[in-house]
Amino acid sequence: MADPFPRAGPLARLAELGFRLPHAPAPVAAHVPALRVGTRVITSGQLPLVDGSLAAIGRLGAEVTVAEAYALARVAAVNALAAVHAQARLDDVVRVVRVGGFVASAEGFTDQPAVVDGASHLLEQTFGERGRHVRSAVGVAWLPLGSPVEIELEVEVEVRA
Amino acid sequence: MADPFPRAGPLARLAELGFRLPHAPAPVAAHVPALRVGTRVITSGQLPLVDGSLAAIGRLGAEVTVAEAYALARVAAVNALAAVHAQARLDDVVRVVRVGGFVASAEGFTDQPAVVDGASHLLEQTFGERGRHVRSAVGVAWLPLGSPVEIELEVEVEVRA
Amino acid sequence: MADPFPRAGPLARLAELGFRLPHAPAPVAAHVPALRVGTRVITSGQLPLVDGSLAAIGRLGAEVTVAEAYALARVAAVNALAAVHAQARLDDVVRVVRVGGFVASAEGFTDQPAVVDGASHLLEQTFGERGRHVRSAVGVAWLPLGSPVEIELEVEVEVRA
Repeated sequence: MADPFPRAGPLARLAELGFRLPHAPAPVAAHVPALRVGTRVITSGQLPLVDGSLAAIGRLGAEVTVAEAYALARVAAVNALAAVHAQARLDDVVRVVRVGGFVASAEGFTDQPAVVDGASHLLEQTFGERGRHVRSAVGVAWLPLGSPVEIELEVEVEVRA
Repeated sequence: MADPFPRAGPLARLAELGFRLPHAPAPVAAHVPALRVGTRVITSGQLPLVDGSLAAIGRLGAEVTVAEAYALARVAAVNALAAVHAQARLDDVVRVVRVGGFVASAEGFTDQPAVVDGASHLLEQTFGERGRHVRSAVGVAWLPLGSPVEIELEVEVEVRA
Repeated sequence: MADPFPRAGPLARLAELGFRLPHAPAPVAAHVPALRVGTRVITSGQLPLVDGSLAAIGRLGAEVTVAEAYALARVAAVNALAAVHAQARLDDVVRVVRVGGFVASAEGFTDQPAVVDGASHLLEQTFGERGRHVRSAVGVAWLPLGSPVEIELEVEVEVRA
């Protein structure tokens, strides 16, 4: 159970969880990792890339286990936070609003929530009460590069004077 | 054809349609059924659960018919309204903004709109003109618990003085 | 590489790219092609319909090539812009915010980004810097009418005095 009111800031919490915030992926010509509109910051769908590579490839119910994909969803969520951080400091996040979780699902796999929990738990562990969010978890056919999971994020940040 | 200006409030309209608003699902630790940010209320993806159970399990084009899934999409939409109602009274909804409809689709099934119409019609019958919305209807591989359909909702509520 | 600061307006740019903005699809009873809430305009998921028909039917990795689907994603993006234009003039778009790209994907197809690039490039070619956006590209099972691709769009428009 996460501390509902973490005393440390989100970057310190991530460090305690064993994550260093990576550099946000470089913007591609036509689309960007995250974007701020007023107090909303939304991210592109993020894959669980580490140093540019996927730790596992394949679908749930076939090549990848729930435990593996749970860990990958954590990594994708950290990458989404890195994209947010390039637009607004994580210390300024007042609320995680929404997680969209896409899980590559082979025949008969119906435990998408257990996979997307990797992202949800990471966000609650990082932000405490402010990390609670709405989410949709769906089982898609295939994802870019053969990734087992893709995570998109929306957060609310405070207005700076 | 729905009355474009229903005289009764949305709760009375739902009762006329045979639905009693269920209790919103209990928040899970890390994610919540709905969340309000300013005048926006957005929900998690909702399944057609009744008293905690799915009335049908399976995919369109295989185990479940369009007529069955249409009825399930209505139930999922009512569950989404229950989640909204726990954040802002349905009487305060000034506009249904968006419906996301995910339909578990077996080989060759391409009539996702006829399924998601269950949610869209329920919303128009409940809110009249204010119930009209944008939507995306897509055919996914599998959904949580084997549900045939998952519905996410965004509504706009009025600011209370 | 698109001119980062197109001198012509978006309608003139689309004409240079060979597109005439079609009429927005007629609203169906319960859902509408696009909707404006404050400065946000969001669209329904748009198919690559031309004069009411799909130029190609099928999935990537099976009946449809990446090059064909890239062109279809461009058409779907133009249809999304037509839906936006019925709510707010394209000249008033200050930022393309988000593209959601759903790609019907057969066994083993994992190059969804190359398909959704059709929409992303069209938007950058039309709006220049203002056309850059976040996006999610996922591989779904099947789409309405057997379409290979479906595109949803969110843009920010300026407040008119």
